[in-house]
Amino acid sequence: MATVNEHYLKLKAGYLFPEIGRRVRAFKEKNPKAQIIRMGIGDVTQPLAPAVIEAMHKAVDEMGQPETFRGYDDGGVGYEFLRDAIRQNDFAARRADVDLDEVFVSDGAKCDTGNIQEIFGLDNVIAVADPVYPVYVDTNVMAGRTGQAGDSGQYGGIVYMPATEANGFVPDPPSRHVDIAYLCFPNNPTGSVATAAQLAKWVEYAKAERVVIFFDAAYEAYITDPAIPHSIYEIPGARDVAIEFRSFSKTAGFTGVRCAFIVIPKSVKAYKKDGTAVEVRPLWNRRHCTKFNGVSYVTQAGAAAVYSPDGKKQVRKTIDLYMANAGLIRERLTQLGYRVHGGVNAPYLWLKTPEGIGSWEFFDLLLTKIHVVGTPGVGFGPAGEGYFRLTAFARPEHVQEALDRFAQL
Amino acid sequence: MATVNEHYLKLKAGYLFPEIGRRVRAFKEKNPKAQIIRMGIGDVTQPLAPAVIEAMHKAVDEMGQPETFRGYDDGGVGYEFLRDAIRQNDFAARRADVDLDEVFVSDGAKCDTGNIQEIFGLDNVIAVADPVYPVYVDTNVMAGRTGQAGDSGQYGGIVYMPATEANGFVPDPPSRHVDIAYLCFPNNPTGSVATAAQLAKWVEYAKAERVVIFFDAAYEAYITDPAIPHSIYEIPGARDVAIEFRSFSKTAGFTGVRCAFIVIPKSVKAYKKDGTAVEVRPLWNRRHCTKFNGVSYVTQAGAAAVYSPDGKKQVRKTIDLYMANAGLIRERLTQLGYRVHGGVNAPYLWLKTPEGIGSWEFFDLLLTKIHVVGTPGVGFGPAGEGYFRLTAFARPEHVQEALDRFAQL
Repeated sequence: MATVNEHYLKLKAGYLFPEIGRRVRAFKEKNPKAQIIRMGIGDVTQPLAPAVIEAMHKAVDEMGQPETFRGYDDGGVGYEFLRDAIRQNDFAARRADVDLDEVFVSDGAKCDTGNIQEIFGLDNVIAVADPVYPVYVDTNVMAGRTGQAGDSGQYGGIVYMPATEANGFVPDPPSRHVDIAYLCFPNNPTGSVATAAQLAKWVEYAKAERVVIFFDAAYEAYITDPAIPHSIYEIPGARDVAIEFRSFSKTAGFTGVRCAFIVIPKSVKAYKKDGTAVEVRPLWNRRHCTKFNGVSYVTQAGAAAVYSPDGKKQVRKTIDLYMANAGLIRERLTQLGYRVHGGVNAPYLWLKTPEGIGSWEFFDLLLTKIHVVGTPGVGFGPAGEGYFRLTAFARPEHVQEALDRFAQL
Repeated sequence: MATVNEHYLKLKAGYLFPEIGRRVRAFKEKNPKAQIIRMGIGDVTQPLAPAVIEAMHKAVDEMGQPETFRGYDDGGVGYEFLRDAIRQNDFAARRADVDLDEVFVSDGAKCDTGNIQEIFGLDNVIAVADPVYPVYVDTNVMAGRTGQAGDSGQYGGIVYMPATEANGFVPDPPSRHVDIAYLCFPNNPTGSVATAAQLAKWVEYAKAERVVIFFDAAYEAYITDPAIPHSIYEIPGARDVAIEFRSFSKTAGFTGVRCAFIVIPKSVKAYKKDGTAVEVRPLWNRRHCTKFNGVSYVTQAGAAAVYSPDGKKQVRKTIDLYMANAGLIRERLTQLGYRVHGGVNAPYLWLKTPEGIGSWEFFDLLLTKIHVVGTPGVGFGPAGEGYFRLTAFARPEHVQEALDRFAQL
């Protein structure tokens, strides 16, 4: 008798975004003429940069000729031309040392942040922020590192670190021991960022407690304050304790193209139960080349073009456009009396819902009254109740229109 | 203290193909002038079909324009245009009924066959053929469904079903109970195929024992005998017990493009420990939309073009070219006195090594004497010792040259 992984049955119904999708579809069916503006799911709307398009066309042509055709990307860790561009531009340029063989190219940060837990023991105590990107939690539930969900939606066995107005949405390391901590800065969903001093505190804690930090920096391109670190490896000692996740999805509009990468320094160690230290990088390498077969050559060629002089300029222009959206949302909603966080170093805005209105209630209100789709804060965890996430990724004319509608609400 | 998943430490050193890569690189460094012919790793050499190239260019252009740009593939299960083409061409056309929402598009059959075990309990007894595609076994080792590896390389707790000359490399269902069985036909590495009667026996066994069959049909496009089933769903009852894996990698040369799919009929069930039946498809759907974010739009557009009238003709021509290679290898090596299996309904040839020569010894002999790279049979399991896998994917002129060199050996 084949049995199921019963841990899956602990998962609360529906991953957040499919649930939003269902509600929007149901509304649309009943109101086919409603002009819905989507500021919910973190999907981009601007086309790929011309330099990326050009590189992808060239790569497609290469795939059509026997002399230049490429099959498997050997080992599946990413072509050297891409890993080298990553190493130089994303790390060396910021005085963060990363070796070529510490970079693993993948098809998405969702996959990487979801899969990374697999090379660690089931006995690890996991710490996540609350609110949190649901993938961190759900993948640990699936693996069996948690108990059942309580009424609040939190799972037994996970250490939740509230990210609140009081701590500026940047939790300190917990007072109790944990083994693995997920950090995400610039933060999804709150839009907060961590200073070098705040990250240094985390690195110090990780060293003392032999914690491994999973540092999700998927939104680093949106940082505008020059004092804020883009990589955790800008912090001394982080190479011993942190794994970093990056993505081209938001940086270069690759949500429909699929390219990301993970950095695992050789010095990151975890332990056998008997206390013996084990290098983490070879374990990930083994997983990567056993369960994955590399990223499309066409995609990798496009990703490398993001680092070309033209690519950099074009990508920056698009990010500036999104951040202009963010600035406008902050300004207008603040004028309308909303308390708005984020949107300065991140494409996410974290809105306090009007008094007494729950996150999903506010979601339904916006959907039905002004046909604007956002993301209910409580979907990211109980501390998100009473908050609402808006993204800056809509087209500028839609953002204007949405804000006009907010004014009429 | 962060702990590692100690099951990873049970894995035998090096996944097969990286080990081959290392040996070839080492030889090349010492013999830079040697003209190496690769007939080892199952990678293709012919360029993508013109219809695919055209569709990919069109898709790249769409990604460069705001009106046609596509972000996330909603839910990540694959665009309907592709899933519908799959349903119609791969299944309905062969009288195998598959619904649209039973098809999940992914970036590779390696990923799918590696990940599928995750939604099943750790207590399942796994059956695999010996020799076997290493991914089936290694991913179960990583998950913790096995004991340590013995001297033969076989892991405790797995039921190995020898595929031998005696059974035509098609094992019968085991006499002892198992819970999950991996079948691969046309087979990698032996090139054998299962008849409808042989598959029916498996379906009957699965029903009786409540087994779930993982049916890997990645090589179905190479079947030349019209009586051989391409899909397990051609067998009555299979929709209740089987999950099928397909790939565009070998069918349409997508090894460097990355597209595959999995079919999970709604009627496939597994069980909770208390015996309650659970539908498997929603569990996979939950995994898919939590740990994966869809396949590149450009890739999916290319994959759909494989089903266009031109695409079909062009892809068929390439497969015919590879199968002409296979025929030639069979013929010439048989003339040279080798015992050769496979290569009739599969792109793999399974060669008995000359008397007394082990698989790796034969690998080193071919590499150093005639600069031909194949795959040691024992790399696929102990029953593969004394065998050697050759693939039909090299360019025809290289196949000719390799066979001439074999004649001089």
